[in-house]
Amino acid sequence: MGDIIQARVLKGFRDMLPVAEIQRASLIDRLSATFRSFGFVPIDTPVLEYAEILLGKAGGETEKQVYRFTDSGGRDVAMRFDLTVPFARFMAEHLSELYLPFKRYHMAKVWRGENTQRGRYREFMQCDFDIVGVDSAAADFEIVAVMRAAMVALGAPDSRVHLNNRAVFNRFLERLGAANASTDILRVVDKLHKIGQDDTRAQLAAIAGQSAADELLAFIASGDDYDATLERVTRLAGGPGPDTDRLAEIRDMAVASGIADAVVLAPSITRGLDYYTGVVFETFLDALPDIGSVCSGGRYNDLASLYTHQKLPGVGASVGIDRLLAAFEALGRSGTSGVAPSVLVFNLVDGKNAVYQAAAAAFRAAGLTAEVYPERKKLGQQFAYAEKKGAAFGLIRGSAEEERGVWVLKDLAARAQTEYPSLEDAVKAASARA
Amino acid sequence: MGDIIQARVLKGFRDMLPVAEIQRASLIDRLSATFRSFGFVPIDTPVLEYAEILLGKAGGETEKQVYRFTDSGGRDVAMRFDLTVPFARFMAEHLSELYLPFKRYHMAKVWRGENTQRGRYREFMQCDFDIVGVDSAAADFEIVAVMRAAMVALGAPDSRVHLNNRAVFNRFLERLGAANASTDILRVVDKLHKIGQDDTRAQLAAIAGQSAADELLAFIASGDDYDATLERVTRLAGGPGPDTDRLAEIRDMAVASGIADAVVLAPSITRGLDYYTGVVFETFLDALPDIGSVCSGGRYNDLASLYTHQKLPGVGASVGIDRLLAAFEALGRSGTSGVAPSVLVFNLVDGKNAVYQAAAAAFRAAGLTAEVYPERKKLGQQFAYAEKKGAAFGLIRGSAEEERGVWVLKDLAARAQTEYPSLEDAVKAASARA
Repeated sequence: MGDIIQARVLKGFRDMLPVAEIQRASLIDRLSATFRSFGFVPIDTPVLEYAEILLGKAGGETEKQVYRFTDSGGRDVAMRFDLTVPFARFMAEHLSELYLPFKRYHMAKVWRGENTQRGRYREFMQCDFDIVGVDSAAADFEIVAVMRAAMVALGAPDSRVHLNNRAVFNRFLERLGAANASTDILRVVDKLHKIGQDDTRAQLAAIAGQSAADELLAFIASGDDYDATLERVTRLAGGPGPDTDRLAEIRDMAVASGIADAVVLAPSITRGLDYYTGVVFETFLDALPDIGSVCSGGRYNDLASLYTHQKLPGVGASVGIDRLLAAFEALGRSGTSGVAPSVLVFNLVDGKNAVYQAAAAAFRAAGLTAEVYPERKKLGQQFAYAEKKGAAFGLIRGSAEEERGVWVLKDLAARAQTEYPSLEDAVKAASARA
Repeated sequence: MGDIIQARVLKGFRDMLPVAEIQRASLIDRLSATFRSFGFVPIDTPVLEYAEILLGKAGGETEKQVYRFTDSGGRDVAMRFDLTVPFARFMAEHLSELYLPFKRYHMAKVWRGENTQRGRYREFMQCDFDIVGVDSAAADFEIVAVMRAAMVALGAPDSRVHLNNRAVFNRFLERLGAANASTDILRVVDKLHKIGQDDTRAQLAAIAGQSAADELLAFIASGDDYDATLERVTRLAGGPGPDTDRLAEIRDMAVASGIADAVVLAPSITRGLDYYTGVVFETFLDALPDIGSVCSGGRYNDLASLYTHQKLPGVGASVGIDRLLAAFEALGRSGTSGVAPSVLVFNLVDGKNAVYQAAAAAFRAAGLTAEVYPERKKLGQQFAYAEKKGAAFGLIRGSAEEERGVWVLKDLAARAQTEYPSLEDAVKAASARA
């Protein structure tokens, strides 16, 4: 035997084994169905792009993490590190073929050479959905409604969308005379959940003085009552304006659509510093608040200013697929549903492959998953395989069963078996328990 | 306005716009459902791997085409150029966590810096499915059955799987005394469909003499009758053997499973020279034979000999996703099915967003796709949007309709509209026409 090459993946990368990949595929299927039901359409873009295009606006940290190289044609290329920049390039390139408003979703892998010590992978999946070419309360609300519907579709109805409007916050800071310190203030406010009320107050006082700190804490306080919170921030921001009107409109639409209970007005949500200009959102699981937001986004002024002079305001969000999968695992929710029970046809007698294959075909024709063990082996080995595959039923048709004219269906979990006078009866019995 | 960066994809790469991406997603969904129904499970592997692992066995041509570079950690890495090598590495790495036989499918992008003048893309999707860890007629047949079921699921029942056994061909060449010229002979035989009977005969005669050429042509002749063809090749190969027995077993299983009409024994199918050692298959569309095989594969001796000493015989095939999509387009088959009719709720009166959103939610609750036009705009603009999205219905609830207490559902294709006394009635009407 010759030398072999050690089989191993790169540091920070991973294989998806069947159980994990089935979970991920199920999650993606349900997200996709949700997006489609709201009229969003899928797109895809190349993994490799000109580095100049991907890195046009990127700062130092991103640039260091990106996989960038010179291809054999001498081009300076890079692997995408998010789905936002490719979407901006896509919109600029295809504006004449598309229509506005344009509602797309994109679920695909991205790559970042991150520090793997923080438990991050260098290859991971992103899921973005956006409405571009319109700045309206209806578009803002639709993103909230999709976020909510996605959580329900994923089996997490015990989750809520936290919503704010950056414009209200900015107006409040101006009234407070603290607009020039907004970067520092936002950074502290963003950490409220992590550092707690007292530390937040102390840090805000150091930046803006004790009285401003008290007002800031009053502003960002969370209450479950949307209307009361809206009234408070409207007052603190100096009265009603288009920004608070929009929050009221979103509330009206949430009430009319029956999802008001799942939408929280949370003035402490700011989502970073520069990119977002209007509403911002985060989504938390009631059962697992500490993992952070599983779906976040907001409104931005202009998507593709690097690549086109046409202004493209938009609103969108990202689903944290890996975080959700980890959360469902922690909560003991499989994340899969509607999997048909599978049937393993045992391979018991030489020369009977045609019979076994016909039996499997009959189960499949009834909508079940079915396979034949592909060779004659000891029964124990075939049972072990059935268990590994998670098969619900075994079909047993050996010499004894053939002589007696019966088909035996074994419930593999209950270890109970039932005889049927015909294959059709066995198929019916398995289908009835699907 | 500042300078902008020209938005463009790399040569040989392409964006997937919504219509194309929906087609591709629909094809992938149906393939996935077919694989699952036969007990195949999905896996995924990283796009980037150690170059040493991906290129272990690769020859000059592959090596030239692969995207290979040094990452920021100094590793020699490459982007996968197929799904077979990563699968071999995956099996070697995870043998202890898996079970045999292992049946997997993998649908993912691969990258090759091919000459784009031949109309090839440098980024394309592959779809592989394999059964490894077993060498049996049942496993061979199952791949054939999956290929057939996939074609039916994709709306191409007018297709047939062409099947051969390389071992029979090799035995025949030995009997003919032409085994030493097998490489040249196989190369000519492989071109039969392209160069025709006469040129094939001339080229074979030049290699092996006139009489051997006549025997070769007799051997590779195609007939629709599986049994007659099997009898002929058995005789020409020197009598029955395990190789012809296996072809007979596969026929018996095809008959028992009701797919015998779709399986052709075609002795001219050889599928290249080295990799395959047993049965080989190709799939042709009756309506479009010239595009070549849309699903091909075969049996191999050992999948992962580069990475493990454990012998892993297997059988599998690849679906040519891009070729199938091109074929369905040429045949005018959309490839999509079961798309729910979509409803666009027109945005007609200021301040009525909550009503419109509630209406869209009611259509979605009934299982339809529904969206609200996100701002009040001229009706013509909203109709143009509905057409771009391919919406089936428009819901009209303007001031006049509100006064009269009616909801108007407009069939956008038929340009006919119907009034309903309640939203529920409009939802029911749209659902009934789904």
